[in-house]
Amino acid sequence: MEIAGGVVDPAAIAAEAAARETPVVAWKIGDVEYDARVGRVRQELEARRLDALVLFHPIRIAYLSGFFHVSTDRPMALVVPREGGAESLGILVPHLEQEHVAAAHGVGRVWVYPEYPTGGTKHPMAHLADLLAEMGLDRAGQAVGYDSDGYGDVQGYDGPGLSEVVAAGVQTARARDLVDRLRAVKSPAELAFITESAVWANLAHRLMHEKLALGRNEIELALEASTEASRAMVAALGPGYQPLTTAWGAPPALVMFHAGANTAFPHGLGGGAGLRRGDVLVTGAVADVGGYFSELERTMLLGEPTAAFERGFGQMLRLQQAAFDALRPGRTLAEAEEDVAAAFAELGVAHLQRHHTGHGIGLEGHEWPFIDKGSTEVEIVENMVLTVEPGLYVPGLAGFRHSDTVVVRATGVERLTPYPRDLASLVVEV
Amino acid sequence: MEIAGGVVDPAAIAAEAAARETPVVAWKIGDVEYDARVGRVRQELEARRLDALVLFHPIRIAYLSGFFHVSTDRPMALVVPREGGAESLGILVPHLEQEHVAAAHGVGRVWVYPEYPTGGTKHPMAHLADLLAEMGLDRAGQAVGYDSDGYGDVQGYDGPGLSEVVAAGVQTARARDLVDRLRAVKSPAELAFITESAVWANLAHRLMHEKLALGRNEIELALEASTEASRAMVAALGPGYQPLTTAWGAPPALVMFHAGANTAFPHGLGGGAGLRRGDVLVTGAVADVGGYFSELERTMLLGEPTAAFERGFGQMLRLQQAAFDALRPGRTLAEAEEDVAAAFAELGVAHLQRHHTGHGIGLEGHEWPFIDKGSTEVEIVENMVLTVEPGLYVPGLAGFRHSDTVVVRATGVERLTPYPRDLASLVVEV
Repeated sequence: MEIAGGVVDPAAIAAEAAARETPVVAWKIGDVEYDARVGRVRQELEARRLDALVLFHPIRIAYLSGFFHVSTDRPMALVVPREGGAESLGILVPHLEQEHVAAAHGVGRVWVYPEYPTGGTKHPMAHLADLLAEMGLDRAGQAVGYDSDGYGDVQGYDGPGLSEVVAAGVQTARARDLVDRLRAVKSPAELAFITESAVWANLAHRLMHEKLALGRNEIELALEASTEASRAMVAALGPGYQPLTTAWGAPPALVMFHAGANTAFPHGLGGGAGLRRGDVLVTGAVADVGGYFSELERTMLLGEPTAAFERGFGQMLRLQQAAFDALRPGRTLAEAEEDVAAAFAELGVAHLQRHHTGHGIGLEGHEWPFIDKGSTEVEIVENMVLTVEPGLYVPGLAGFRHSDTVVVRATGVERLTPYPRDLASLVVEV
Repeated sequence: MEIAGGVVDPAAIAAEAAARETPVVAWKIGDVEYDARVGRVRQELEARRLDALVLFHPIRIAYLSGFFHVSTDRPMALVVPREGGAESLGILVPHLEQEHVAAAHGVGRVWVYPEYPTGGTKHPMAHLADLLAEMGLDRAGQAVGYDSDGYGDVQGYDGPGLSEVVAAGVQTARARDLVDRLRAVKSPAELAFITESAVWANLAHRLMHEKLALGRNEIELALEASTEASRAMVAALGPGYQPLTTAWGAPPALVMFHAGANTAFPHGLGGGAGLRRGDVLVTGAVADVGGYFSELERTMLLGEPTAAFERGFGQMLRLQQAAFDALRPGRTLAEAEEDVAAAFAELGVAHLQRHHTGHGIGLEGHEWPFIDKGSTEVEIVENMVLTVEPGLYVPGLAGFRHSDTVVVRATGVERLTPYPRDLASLVVEV
């Protein structure tokens, strides 16, 4: 059969497509959103009577400029002046990063220093003072906020604080919370990325789940699942995808777990022992989409549950439900935490609680705010994304903890992590 | 055939072996070495007239106590008093880590706070002041050194500096370099672990090398090799092995690479595009043995090298040889860097240098000291471990960089990374 009507020239079609350059979904935050973020920072600088904000943390730099980089001993800093137009940010970078930084949005001044410690001339922090001077900020009467008073304690770096290198008469002030408060409420694009992240974390977890078997080593088993899930994610998301916040060389869709005695305490380090009948697993799965994370954790069991295990598992499910129910706009996070504490007390297990209920999540796996009794002034607002993970730690038996990632909607929360939570789904017959 | 002479009872043999508890190689630093490290810190405190050292960085805490943990928004701190016996260290931990910290060596006082931000009571830094008070250190006239003035900017944490929470009259002083200078010279056990690390990084690199093929995705290809190498390492090192400093869920033996245009600049973020003929690869492989790292990097090419590529590659090899030759005890690291700079100049490529020659390596991938013009007071001494990685970055062509991990011996350096360096071995026919 022939297709009638005109001649089709494949080369012409390809040329036309290339000329049109219809963009492919990029899995990156767009420039309009970066401009809006900087605009909100400027409003806040106005409110706090600060003339500029200096940010040293790589994630805050990425949040405002789209410039993602690997933080090393070579300091970088982003300077956001309160006044200025579309491209008025300043950035300090080592020579090494000179070309990468072209990817930063909104940056008008790039100040390049040769090397850390010095490259033979002067300390990078002295170069930062030069950048501030060029931007009119390093002079008496200026008030400059910072996230940290100097670059962090990273990979052998050492150096003076920002307050030690600015000119006399420049006021410096801690303002770490300024950007972090903005980050806590997610935009539609951020919510889309976190939702997509949860999809791939869910796949990684499922693949790991299917591989569980007695005698298998937990490290290699988790890595196999992570590799398969990452392959699928990279293939599915297409050429616009790039991991942005994944640790160097780690799988961008990642699952791991602790088994056996390690689970009775939270945040254990993984081991390489083989799986045994009766092992309790506390799992964790994440994925990096556009630099954003979700978090999925499940308590699992290899073999038949004992009555004690069933009871602890059931209590943990109730605690997590109490936490889901407690999160509504208009309340504070401390009030939500008090509800969860009441549920612990009601179940008679208050002494088995080791940590608060959850934390913010986004460009970092943990970020401000916290579902904690100390968060008395943090109101729950729509589009916050939080983990919900009250844990019950029973010495000698098991740690029971599910973690789900939720988004705050108008009347409560929606769970973004679709993995089953019930015991029957999480017991593996061996 | 029967074996003559007596009856062998397998159960009795197993029971005897268990009773004897002959230790299996643990791939961990021993208690004697931890004691020696603390002893050297105390000598240095004496020399600096400090009464104690407060460490917030997780790796420095691990270096002195063997307590490896995942750093989160919940601060921890190790307090090393100048005076004291075998178990006189103090440690601040969140409730969450109360049991893990039992693994810490030399700790006599564990101060547990409920939660960060507060768990409803007071800030963790106020608890640190309480711990210092209990140790007799939070009173006028005491001089306390620190690695950072407060806990780091980690995962949403915020809080005051150490200098802000101690009692009036307590002097605080920056002393980040104190432990890092000790770390720079490795013990026999540390050298053994780094050497073993290089063996497995070498395997990961070889497996990745064998998988290189046109069209394959660089993320999944590297993850496959990392998973296979990690499986082999975990199996080979036996049940005493546990990854201690590997990023959460990452392969403990790990290889990755940047391909194509990404290589012309150092420290790029990996992408997911398929491999193409003519792609230049800059690779990296590491492995975690006892928490210690090595670093292996190679410049590779898919397809036939051009004359320009061969020239750049050859120049890079000469620069690396110049760096190997420059490292000898008794010189300074700045003198070594000057030799490398002279080699760049001699080859007419000084304008293509983007960074100094290398850095220390051990419990961190980069650590003090640096082979840098600024290291004018850092003498090269035996048993320092350094990376040697002068890079030549030719815009539009390629980044050329091998990195080898070397140990300083009496008369020069020994290369711990046995991977071939020559062009023929690193060109992949496709």
